[in-house]
Amino acid sequence: MKKLGIIGGMGPMATADLYRRVIELTPADSDQEHIETWIGSVPQIPDRTAYLLGTSSENPLPKMVEVGKSLRDQGAEILAIPCITAHAFHSELEEGIGIPVIHPIRELAELCRICDVRKLGVMATDGAKKAGIYDEVLSDYGVACIWPDEKGQKDVMSMIYNDVKAGGMIGVGTFGRVAKDLFDRGSEAIVLGCTELSQAKYALKLDARYFDIIDVLAEACVRECLEEE
Amino acid sequence: MKKLGIIGGMGPMATADLYRRVIELTPADSDQEHIETWIGSVPQIPDRTAYLLGTSSENPLPKMVEVGKSLRDQGAEILAIPCITAHAFHSELEEGIGIPVIHPIRELAELCRICDVRKLGVMATDGAKKAGIYDEVLSDYGVACIWPDEKGQKDVMSMIYNDVKAGGMIGVGTFGRVAKDLFDRGSEAIVLGCTELSQAKYALKLDARYFDIIDVLAEACVRECLEEE
Repeated sequence: MKKLGIIGGMGPMATADLYRRVIELTPADSDQEHIETWIGSVPQIPDRTAYLLGTSSENPLPKMVEVGKSLRDQGAEILAIPCITAHAFHSELEEGIGIPVIHPIRELAELCRICDVRKLGVMATDGAKKAGIYDEVLSDYGVACIWPDEKGQKDVMSMIYNDVKAGGMIGVGTFGRVAKDLFDRGSEAIVLGCTELSQAKYALKLDARYFDIIDVLAEACVRECLEEE
Repeated sequence: MKKLGIIGGMGPMATADLYRRVIELTPADSDQEHIETWIGSVPQIPDRTAYLLGTSSENPLPKMVEVGKSLRDQGAEILAIPCITAHAFHSELEEGIGIPVIHPIRELAELCRICDVRKLGVMATDGAKKAGIYDEVLSDYGVACIWPDEKGQKDVMSMIYNDVKAGGMIGVGTFGRVAKDLFDRGSEAIVLGCTELSQAKYALKLDARYFDIIDVLAEACVRECLEEE
């Protein structure tokens, strides 16, 4: 069984949620059969979106690499990061830390293949959009991304920053309007593509047309850690 | 703001739950205002109850100290352990690791004082019972512990090991029978005194006569980390 490391704190609740999902998805009848997991939850890592958009000059990469190296030194053999925007730095992270970092959007692409989804609505941060991480990876798999219109994208950012990250809840109306527009424009499914939006799944009781990026990442963690050598 | 360390994995779900409660209880409007938290979730730490009862010779203390030292080396200034039975080793842990370990039962005693509870029903492991950690600490505060009878104590152990630790759910009937007996025998409140039993709070929708030891520990974590020097 491989040891898992989680570079966390981006945000904190997504970190707790990812770990909970990893536990739930692990087949185990006793504590001792669970995956050894080291978590560095460092919410002080500079904002990824602000750096990618150029509104802040504070580069989050060095701190993420530092946390990743600490986890590696504790024995972690594979890393997960419950912050999708952070994957704009995926190759630099793997190179800087020296152990594999699970790529949640490659996992998502695989899920689209299995579910025969060719057009995927994406709710994610401006940073993830600008960095092109969804569009680039998914287009390699033949999946087209449909993003909210300008107003809808502002609503998504507000749900992430003004609602979830501030400790509140996502409004049903705002979420529903953005989702309806994405379906109306041809989305066959929608990814809750920022770990903070996963909170909507429980609050809004969403159905199977929604892919939760935390679930996708958690499933990959369990598979990678339990995989026979 | 102090950095928090969590010696986890005993069990894993209690660990995820404690961290989630710490986040929920932290007053914060952005990621960056949350507490930096390092978690070593090592479910392979030998069973505490089995060692305390003498049914296993594997001492969990050295591994707990090792994990605690790793967290200290990451910068943790104060530690929490979401396993009550582990606090049978509280003084050895503090001495071995060299930083303070929050004592959840002292925190519980303080809660009993605030709520004017003099007789407390206790649902906890055989190991915690045998080690006397509840009785000793609470009697110092003038609180008497009421434990389940022999059959009830077996039911509590079964809920912890056969239900929660095996990934299942606590039965309403079994839990209710044990709780009724504790109230009938004079308990003014009942502590869910093993972190695995906290799961019952959500599943069974328990009222304010139940003290959840995870909540008690999480509140202490937030208070200690946010306290002005």
